[in-house]
Amino acid sequence: MFLTRTEYDRGVNTFSPEGRLFQVEYAIEAIKLGSTAIGVKTKEGVVLAVEKRITSPLLEPSSVEKIMEIDDHIGCAMSGLIADARTLVEHARVETQNHRFSYGEPMTVESTTQALCDLALRFGEGDEESMSRPFGVSLLIAGHDENGPSLYYTDPSGTFWQCNAKAIGSGSEGADSSLQEQFNKDLSLSEAETIAVSILKQVMEEKVTPNNVDIAKVAPAYHLYTPEEVEAVISRL
Amino acid sequence: MFLTRTEYDRGVNTFSPEGRLFQVEYAIEAIKLGSTAIGVKTKEGVVLAVEKRITSPLLEPSSVEKIMEIDDHIGCAMSGLIADARTLVEHARVETQNHRFSYGEPMTVESTTQALCDLALRFGEGDEESMSRPFGVSLLIAGHDENGPSLYYTDPSGTFWQCNAKAIGSGSEGADSSLQEQFNKDLSLSEAETIAVSILKQVMEEKVTPNNVDIAKVAPAYHLYTPEEVEAVISRL
Amino acid sequence: MFLTRTEYDRGVNTFSPEGRLFQVEYAIEAIKLGSTAIGVKTKEGVVLAVEKRITSPLLEPSSVEKIMEIDDHIGCAMSGLIADARTLVEHARVETQNHRFSYGEPMTVESTTQALCDLALRFGEGDEESMSRPFGVSLLIAGHDENGPSLYYTDPSGTFWQCNAKAIGSGSEGADSSLQEQFNKDLSLSEAETIAVSILKQVMEEKVTPNNVDIAKVAPAYHLYTPEEVEAVISRL
Amino acid sequence: MFLTRTEYDRGVNTFSPEGRLFQVEYAIEAIKLGSTAIGVKTKEGVVLAVEKRITSPLLEPSSVEKIMEIDDHIGCAMSGLIADARTLVEHARVETQNHRFSYGEPMTVESTTQALCDLALRFGEGDEESMSRPFGVSLLIAGHDENGPSLYYTDPSGTFWQCNAKAIGSGSEGADSSLQEQFNKDLSLSEAETIAVSILKQVMEEKVTPNNVDIAKVAPAYHLYTPEEVEAVISRL
Amino acid sequence: MFLTRTEYDRGVNTFSPEGRLFQVEYAIEAIKLGSTAIGVKTKEGVVLAVEKRITSPLLEPSSVEKIMEIDDHIGCAMSGLIADARTLVEHARVETQNHRFSYGEPMTVESTTQALCDLALRFGEGDEESMSRPFGVSLLIAGHDENGPSLYYTDPSGTFWQCNAKAIGSGSEGADSSLQEQFNKDLSLSEAETIAVSILKQVMEEKVTPNNVDIAKVAPAYHLYTPEEVEAVISRL
Amino acid sequence: MFLTRTEYDRGVNTFSPEGRLFQVEYAIEAIKLGSTAIGVKTKEGVVLAVEKRITSPLLEPSSVEKIMEIDDHIGCAMSGLIADARTLVEHARVETQNHRFSYGEPMTVESTTQALCDLALRFGEGDEESMSRPFGVSLLIAGHDENGPSLYYTDPSGTFWQCNAKAIGSGSEGADSSLQEQFNKDLSLSEAETIAVSILKQVMEEKVTPNNVDIAKVAPAYHLYTPEEVEAVISRL
Amino acid sequence: MFLTRTEYDRGVNTFSPEGRLFQVEYAIEAIKLGSTAIGVKTKEGVVLAVEKRITSPLLEPSSVEKIMEIDDHIGCAMSGLIADARTLVEHARVETQNHRFSYGEPMTVESTTQALCDLALRFGEGDEESMSRPFGVSLLIAGHDENGPSLYYTDPSGTFWQCNAKAIGSGSEGADSSLQEQFNKDLSLSEAETIAVSILKQVMEEKVTPNNVDIAKVAPAYHLYTPEEVEAVISRL
Repeated sequence: MFLTRTEYDRGVNTFSPEGRLFQVEYAIEAIKLGSTAIGVKTKEGVVLAVEKRITSPLLEPSSVEKIMEIDDHIGCAMSGLIADARTLVEHARVETQNHRFSYGEPMTVESTTQALCDLALRFGEGDEESMSRPFGVSLLIAGHDENGPSLYYTDPSGTFWQCNAKAIGSGSEGADSSLQEQFNKDLSLSEAETIAVSILKQVMEEKVTPNNVDIAKVAPAYHLYTPEEVEAVISRL
Repeated sequence: MFLTRTEYDRGVNTFSPEGRLFQVEYAIEAIKLGSTAIGVKTKEGVVLAVEKRITSPLLEPSSVEKIMEIDDHIGCAMSGLIADARTLVEHARVETQNHRFSYGEPMTVESTTQALCDLALRFGEGDEESMSRPFGVSLLIAGHDENGPSLYYTDPSGTFWQCNAKAIGSGSEGADSSLQEQFNKDLSLSEAETIAVSILKQVMEEKVTPNNVDIAKVAPAYHLYTPEEVEAVISRL
Repeated sequence: MFLTRTEYDRGVNTFSPEGRLFQVEYAIEAIKLGSTAIGVKTKEGVVLAVEKRITSPLLEPSSVEKIMEIDDHIGCAMSGLIADARTLVEHARVETQNHRFSYGEPMTVESTTQALCDLALRFGEGDEESMSRPFGVSLLIAGHDENGPSLYYTDPSGTFWQCNAKAIGSGSEGADSSLQEQFNKDLSLSEAETIAVSILKQVMEEKVTPNNVDIAKVAPAYHLYTPEEVEAVISRL
Repeated sequence: MFLTRTEYDRGVNTFSPEGRLFQVEYAIEAIKLGSTAIGVKTKEGVVLAVEKRITSPLLEPSSVEKIMEIDDHIGCAMSGLIADARTLVEHARVETQNHRFSYGEPMTVESTTQALCDLALRFGEGDEESMSRPFGVSLLIAGHDENGPSLYYTDPSGTFWQCNAKAIGSGSEGADSSLQEQFNKDLSLSEAETIAVSILKQVMEEKVTPNNVDIAKVAPAYHLYTPEEVEAVISRL
Repeated sequence: MFLTRTEYDRGVNTFSPEGRLFQVEYAIEAIKLGSTAIGVKTKEGVVLAVEKRITSPLLEPSSVEKIMEIDDHIGCAMSGLIADARTLVEHARVETQNHRFSYGEPMTVESTTQALCDLALRFGEGDEESMSRPFGVSLLIAGHDENGPSLYYTDPSGTFWQCNAKAIGSGSEGADSSLQEQFNKDLSLSEAETIAVSILKQVMEEKVTPNNVDIAKVAPAYHLYTPEEVEAVISRL
Repeated sequence: MFLTRTEYDRGVNTFSPEGRLFQVEYAIEAIKLGSTAIGVKTKEGVVLAVEKRITSPLLEPSSVEKIMEIDDHIGCAMSGLIADARTLVEHARVETQNHRFSYGEPMTVESTTQALCDLALRFGEGDEESMSRPFGVSLLIAGHDENGPSLYYTDPSGTFWQCNAKAIGSGSEGADSSLQEQFNKDLSLSEAETIAVSILKQVMEEKVTPNNVDIAKVAPAYHLYTPEEVEAVISRL
Repeated sequence: MFLTRTEYDRGVNTFSPEGRLFQVEYAIEAIKLGSTAIGVKTKEGVVLAVEKRITSPLLEPSSVEKIMEIDDHIGCAMSGLIADARTLVEHARVETQNHRFSYGEPMTVESTTQALCDLALRFGEGDEESMSRPFGVSLLIAGHDENGPSLYYTDPSGTFWQCNAKAIGSGSEGADSSLQEQFNKDLSLSEAETIAVSILKQVMEEKVTPNNVDIAKVAPAYHLYTPEEVEAVISRL
């Protein structure tokens, strides 16, 4: 008699008989409920675009931060639990600042991503910095370093991949298909902006406005678009 | 066979198969039982108003503190478990004082809110400052800094949003609807007072008096209204 | 299928689906089994009166301490588990002594109450000073400081309220009703003594004597009444 | 559906829905299985008398220590788990020695009792000095200090009471009744000896001899009676 | 509905509703499976004799150590889990050496026994020296100090008794009866040897030889008998 | 009545009645789901080849790292959870760097493997470096030191073996059979490349390309093949 | 209703009602699955011989180490979990090196064995060096010190015995019988080699070759036989 799947989630970080880690799989479910975020890499830089869910007209749209700066040359878009994402981003900011202080140069995008994932991997271990559960968030990390522009995708298991383009969140399945059709390596940054926002528009149920979409680029410095800049991209669709 | 929802609340900080954190959701239930609090932001400053439940005529109304000062330029209104709120506020007071001491200037309202939420997020981890369960309280944090007036709303998950106006507690649903109807960005502070108290009046089951309502403003300094000042607002309704 | 209420008490400090903390509620039950204590605040000072249950004629009545001094200007009456109360009082004594030593002035009554409640709130967290369960005791804290006389009431959740008059313990329901009828802000200290002891007399099942009642006042210094002083109050009834 | 009583004993130090602490109640059961001990206070000093259960004629009666010295002016009789009692007594010995060293004067009997009870109260908390379960022992603590002779009774909950006379252990119910009949405040020490031993004789199933009874007094110094002195008391019955 | 007895053994160190400690009782069961050991005290010194179970002719009989030296003036015989006994003996050796070093004189037999029992009592508490379960061993501790020869018996609860003679292990019941018949205080050491080995012979199922019996004395120094000396005792039977 | 197998996986690191460690066995299952990796040792050096699963055309193939450098003279191929492998590799990198710093010479391949396995063995123990579950990864460690080339295979139990050739991951069973047929000690490095890639080709379900296969050698230094070098090997098949 | 045997293995280190430690018994089961190892002591020195299970022709036979050196004068053969054995051996190596450094002389074989067993005994206690479960390995420790040659046998409970000859692992039962028949104290080292390997041959299912058998001696220094030396012994059968 085998225990049913759900009985394995009690041990926070334990293998099931089939070799699976259910708490990580459940955290991935949390992301499927999150808002959609899209990243596109071009030779000129990387574009990030996210859906902002403004649940009430009383909320300040600018305070629903789903794209955050990590360092001058690195930014990230997130989907899932925002409070968890803030913890990871804050951890990455400290790491990149320490690196600048110790070595007098910016941390590479991959090292920054690895540092984020190290923290994510070690949940359930009771030491001071780790969480008692997996981080319920996926990140798209856009950066620019000595190797040029790069885009990384992380999941709650602490694994990361380098991508040319990637969507996360509730609309990721459809968005990934669209990205595969429309992406090519010779896109200009401006074309990448148009593709990212037009795909977001498909997966969102409302009209796209500067209030419910955020855009940022790392090219080569991080820049969060003003409402006017977002409006300009939307008007190009 | 899936476990029923309630069996997931045993692990204090654990995902359910659907990616949910039940202890956080249950803590949010604790707030739905709490008294109503309302915040309204204007260009002149922010107004906070709360219902005080005086369960016995023998209680000192002034000791049922549901609006507290964090620093000269920041105050907060709360709904839920008062003892939990006091712990968060005390933590925030230490943070803002440390910031003044270290940097010689006041902490921004957002940083203060983030510091509060960092503590709220880390429940169940066994280190000295965190709780073994989520904090059962929501806060409306009103402040004024170099960016002008601002109003933040926090929940037990450690997430926060910036708002123009917001209601929390048992009457929040109706109050939020009324706020959406009546709020506009050009309200004067005096109009905001009137709106906040008139909406509180709708959701409370008793006559509004200086004994069962507290009002405070941050404009630009924190000020808790005297009974006479509260009476003056009520008389304008 | 929801778990029944009682299954939530296993996690010492965990929310139920309705947002409740059952261990705290159970600790409050422990107090309902305790002896009755009454506090009354007047302009001249605060009176505390408690029922002492002398289970055997062989016990020394004076050793059944249910009113204890915290500092020269603060005393408290208790109902519930006496050993728990002693721990809280000892903690408060250390806090008030430390405050005098560090600042050269007495600690305010509210700060002392807050310090007691901080300890009570943090049960189940495994650090050195906190308990592994809630403290099973309620306190009536009477004091006199720069704000004049004050009376605080604390419960096992770590919450406190300022009161004009309050009863705790098994007879608190009836006693609170009587207090509401008889209390007014212009009571003399002597009238407060009479009211407190006459209400105690109603809720106790035996004749009131200096052996089964203790009285103390803070006016402005803490003073525990001698048997003769208690007898004098009783004779006035 | 309420859990049955016995299901609450799993959490070592947790309230039941009725506000009870079952592990403490179970520890009190352990004492009801213990041998009987009696204490009687007189103006001249305090007498302690205990039943010794010599399970085998091969045991040295003098090694079945159920009365132990804590300091020159304090001794105690015990009922329950002897190994637990030894730990408490050893703790008290260290406390009284430290007090003499730090303050140059003996520790009062009440402070010594409080120190013992502090240790007893904190079971289940995992720090170095406390036990992982309640101490399964009750003590009768006899002492003499600046306030004259005193007799304290402690139970596994960490609560203590001052008594004129008290019996603990399996025969305590009958012995307490007899003590109430025979005790008066004008007893001489010699009369107290006779009363204590004659009551022990009633509750024991064997003939009373210097082998199965121990007697000690604190008057004002601790003294454990020699077999000859015990014989002399017995011969007076 | 009461839980059945066996459900209490889960909490390693927890009372049952009847006031019992089951893990300690189960550890005592472990000793009932052990080999028999006998101690006899005389005015000249103490004799220890143990059965050695040589499960295979390939084992070195001398390596099956069931009598061990603690200090020059103290030795002990054991029954139960040998590895547990070695830990206790090693602890006692360190204690006695430390005592000699600090005070320039040997530790008394009672203090040594108390030190052993302190360690045994504190199981399940997670500090460095204690075990996570009771020690599954009983000891007969023979020694000689300023009070002359003495014999102590310890059990897994951390309790100890002083004895004139005592048997432990699987044959202890019959052996104790025989000891009661044959023991008197005027035995010579040589008579004690004969009694101890003759009783061992009764409870063992094989012929007694220097290979399956060990003998030691403390008179006043510890001495483990050579095979020749054992043979000499056997030949006297 | 025996518990069923699956009920033993709750204790993370506990034996079953048959002497098995189920969490380790479940972790081994995780590897059977992983991509296939192959190592072949020759006199000239060691070849590693791995299947890369590119789940989306938007992923950068070069970022799916399944062969990593540990030190100049050591590399490893992995199958299973990539995040776990990165932790082990990072640990090994620190160990080899420390060794170079302390002893001025490279760490041997066996010592490096032992250091990795020490970390893997100690899961479930709560100290800072170990995981709360077994590492869900197997490694093929290729190196070259004073003993010439060597190839080690590690599994989640912390056990390691030295091999001439070995396959791990989902296709390991078939690949191992092929290796046994084709391996001999006189293979050239070039022949080893051909064998490794041709066997990978059999077990993969797609066409072999530089995008879905990585190759590295340690001969005597670690070298990860460029896409051109991989293409060259493929073209030889 | 008694719990069934298997329900006791949950508490890692807990007695069952019959006084048994099941996790230790289950660990002993792990050894019954292990390969067979044999030790024989002679006046000239000690011989160890082990079966090596080469599960794949691709494994390096020399890397399947089942006999390891602890110090110049001590070696050991193992059966059970190899990774566990390596941890114990590494611990013993550090102990013997420390002893040489501190005292300038080799550690005795018994002290080395005791140090190994101390570590094995303390499983489940959470300190840094111990494991969270019993070590699943038995050792035959062969050594030579001032007392001449010696052979010790340890099991997972942390118990050890000195032997003249002993077999462990899956074939131990038959091998022990053969050893009892063939062993005598006057064997030469060469005869011991022959006996050990001939008995191994009986219990193994394959032909005995230098690839699947390892031999070592301590006479008086540790020496692991070369394949040629093993071949020479085999050829004598």
